[in-house]
Amino acid sequence: MSDKEIFSEVNTNAYIDLDEETEEKLRERLIKLQEKVVSSKRAVIAVFCGVNGAGKDQVTELLREWLNNKYLILKAYDRSEMKNSMQEFRRYWVDTPPEGKIGLFVSSWYSNPLSAYAHKECNEAEFHTMLDKLNFFEKTLSDWGAIIVKFWLYMDKADQEKYLKSISSDPLENWRVTSDDFANMSLHDNFSEATKKIIKYTDKDYAKWYFIKESNLNRRIEKTLKDFCNHIEKALDSKQGDKPKIELKELIKEKGISLSSRFEDVDLSLSLSKEEYNQKLIELRAILNRQFMEIKTKGEKVITVFEGTDASGKGGSITRMTSSLNIHDFNIFPISAPNKEELEHHFLWRFWKDFNQQKLLTVFDRSWYGRVLVERVEKLTSERDWIRGYEEINYFEDLLVKEKNHIIKFLLCISEDEQLKRFKERENTIYKEWKITDEDWRNRSKWDDYVKAFNDMLKLCDTWYAPWVLISGNNKRYARIQVMENLSKYLEKVLSTQ
Amino acid sequence: MSDKEIFSEVNTNAYIDLDEETEEKLRERLIKLQEKVVSSKRAVIAVFCGVNGAGKDQVTELLREWLNNKYLILKAYDRSEMKNSMQEFRRYWVDTPPEGKIGLFVSSWYSNPLSAYAHKECNEAEFHTMLDKLNFFEKTLSDWGAIIVKFWLYMDKADQEKYLKSISSDPLENWRVTSDDFANMSLHDNFSEATKKIIKYTDKDYAKWYFIKESNLNRRIEKTLKDFCNHIEKALDSKQGDKPKIELKELIKEKGISLSSRFEDVDLSLSLSKEEYNQKLIELRAILNRQFMEIKTKGEKVITVFEGTDASGKGGSITRMTSSLNIHDFNIFPISAPNKEELEHHFLWRFWKDFNQQKLLTVFDRSWYGRVLVERVEKLTSERDWIRGYEEINYFEDLLVKEKNHIIKFLLCISEDEQLKRFKERENTIYKEWKITDEDWRNRSKWDDYVKAFNDMLKLCDTWYAPWVLISGNNKRYARIQVMENLSKYLEKVLSTQ
Repeated sequence: MSDKEIFSEVNTNAYIDLDEETEEKLRERLIKLQEKVVSSKRAVIAVFCGVNGAGKDQVTELLREWLNNKYLILKAYDRSEMKNSMQEFRRYWVDTPPEGKIGLFVSSWYSNPLSAYAHKECNEAEFHTMLDKLNFFEKTLSDWGAIIVKFWLYMDKADQEKYLKSISSDPLENWRVTSDDFANMSLHDNFSEATKKIIKYTDKDYAKWYFIKESNLNRRIEKTLKDFCNHIEKALDSKQGDKPKIELKELIKEKGISLSSRFEDVDLSLSLSKEEYNQKLIELRAILNRQFMEIKTKGEKVITVFEGTDASGKGGSITRMTSSLNIHDFNIFPISAPNKEELEHHFLWRFWKDFNQQKLLTVFDRSWYGRVLVERVEKLTSERDWIRGYEEINYFEDLLVKEKNHIIKFLLCISEDEQLKRFKERENTIYKEWKITDEDWRNRSKWDDYVKAFNDMLKLCDTWYAPWVLISGNNKRYARIQVMENLSKYLEKVLSTQ
Repeated sequence: MSDKEIFSEVNTNAYIDLDEETEEKLRERLIKLQEKVVSSKRAVIAVFCGVNGAGKDQVTELLREWLNNKYLILKAYDRSEMKNSMQEFRRYWVDTPPEGKIGLFVSSWYSNPLSAYAHKECNEAEFHTMLDKLNFFEKTLSDWGAIIVKFWLYMDKADQEKYLKSISSDPLENWRVTSDDFANMSLHDNFSEATKKIIKYTDKDYAKWYFIKESNLNRRIEKTLKDFCNHIEKALDSKQGDKPKIELKELIKEKGISLSSRFEDVDLSLSLSKEEYNQKLIELRAILNRQFMEIKTKGEKVITVFEGTDASGKGGSITRMTSSLNIHDFNIFPISAPNKEELEHHFLWRFWKDFNQQKLLTVFDRSWYGRVLVERVEKLTSERDWIRGYEEINYFEDLLVKEKNHIIKFLLCISEDEQLKRFKERENTIYKEWKITDEDWRNRSKWDDYVKAFNDMLKLCDTWYAPWVLISGNNKRYARIQVMENLSKYLEKVLSTQ
């Protein structure tokens, strides 16, 4: 029994009252649609925006009541909760639905730019920078296969005034409106302008806006639900291409850094004596600690990424680097194969999760570069997807840097002979045996493929804001000091240019 | 190559220097131990406390360097991060290692009571209340099968003074000490007293403290690691009992509420006319909203739990109840079978996770009571474990209530005939078909077992701080209003007695 069957004299501004036939048809259609989404293994992201009274809450509540909640996510973002821009963006990412689920987002990521613009808390450039981020966020998810559809439920000034007046004068319903609603009402023109700009700037093939302007609540809800079904049904029928949009060679020609360093150009003969190492290690620890503390004072963070073949010395370098910090100030994430839940999301999802309770220094022992290294070489991901990875990674790192992070990435380079020596040493040391597996030997047989993948990665992802540093790794002492020296140089640059 | 081979003249107060043979033996032993932990499918929780300089950071760093990080978790809690007691405790729970992994906790959950007591920010009673919580936390995890071992690395006042002096006068190492360390030094006696009390009060069979007071850093580290191995090796060898510590009958005799309501005593003939329902619904919405807003103003939260057989009307009641709130103010968690990751943790782990970004109202559509309902009836959990569940649940809810939550639990009761009617209606309505599965029919055949489980749950978990309310559910209108009325009565009581 639904409310509508019962209510006779309720405030029609607050309650939905669809006729029975319309409701039944819609419910049937929605349930069938959800079943198709589940079996399609594609995620759906649906955004619902609009002023209080326009119906965004009601339409999502209806969807929650009607759909199978096992395959549904509903998130309502409140502007007041968002304080830290990094954590806010992290949250959008973490909340994205996995394959086969529908995510409903009330107010969503548009709430913040909308309010900020309407209240003149940001200028045009800042406003558009926020929207750029959201465009790329949605594009990335769409490229991954998500179906994105966005609704702006609109009321004109007169209608909203009428609504607020009607509700606030009804003693049983006036709890629905707050002083904020009246304050926003007085800024109606500002909100309208912000709305228009947002829709214009973020209406994309891959993330279309539906502007719902029917003047009656029931018609708005009905129109929204029908457009919701139409859009998703159509999107499910259209096939995604299998081929890369751009071949790797072309991508490198277009975006690659022609003078980038190559793995094989690294001089592996460099080394350091015990005495030099000893002295430098202690000195660099003190220097790095001072630099880190300066960064901390400024409220900024550091992210370091370590890549390299098996036994290239990542772990040892990380331990020496982090010895410059108190154990409370850093986190190390060892990255191995993704689990089931991670595989059901975009590949960057798991890394966004890791930025929960972010510390001064976050260390990735292997990283998102797995997308264009192991996943490429072992053919775990389609060519179409890993080729797109380079751009997605660059944008991801760009975003992190804009959110007060400093990123530096180390590629530890060793020779095939040195690797063999280390593998054998591991096999012959009881407490190191676990470090060497059949997989390591298999990876070793693909040495040339990995080198090729490293070089392409260097050509495409060695950006000015998140540089790659090649480390000569045959001599462990030399490698460890090189990592610390390069980090220190980078932090010095960062600290002096702000 | 480890640092110790290289360093000749370093500050021996800051660096570990174990002799080569000791190190090799320890590493072999630790790696073997870790392999045993992985295959035992038991979690290990190791706590390391002590002042700056005592070596808690060093010993955990060493373990991280030596052990396989794939099966290792390291968490260093900083006191300054902890602001909200609910979120703090949630974090301890969320960070607990799954089966087969070792969790290292630096400073850990003892950091807060230690500091608070030493700085006289809490009185004796508050201090012991904090420790009680930690005792039960550890006991719960131990009962689940976790091996818990705790180390307090101790330095006496003279040694710590010597350490701080030595480090702070070394220009390359003085970054290791802060003004806080000197401030705490002046409170050394307070910290010692707090330490003694903590150890005395939280040293348990199931969570033993090792007080490491060797005066030399290397000996402290060595002793800690040896005790770490000894303790875990011994614990792995000792078998856990299979039998319940107490039979259900005895438990009910000891703790059960003799006058508790029974499922079959509910008068299912009660009903409400459309007109009454309509009027009451609108009135109760307004009342509930006012009450919720009062709770919000006080910085408190509400948690509601819904249990009942399939088709008992949980979803519909939840929708009506939440219609008294703005969509931003509540979260609904539909609880179904746990996934792989959840199964690898204590059964309460997944519910602690759900309190992330906790909203004013959190609704559980089914809940942790699955432990003593479906898991009991379907024999998914051993008798030993589900019998223990009652007490664990009571304690869990007690803790939530102490953390500014108000809990009320609804059991929706319907007759077997009414269920059959609703099952058939679902089968005959296209958009409700998905709601009825073979599993529902199977559950129905165990009706009496479920009723028995409901009644035991009512006897053992209807507490004054988190009451169960039985709802007469054959008439949906009556049930929905009953839920809202009882919630409103409860909130009124809560608001008037504070």
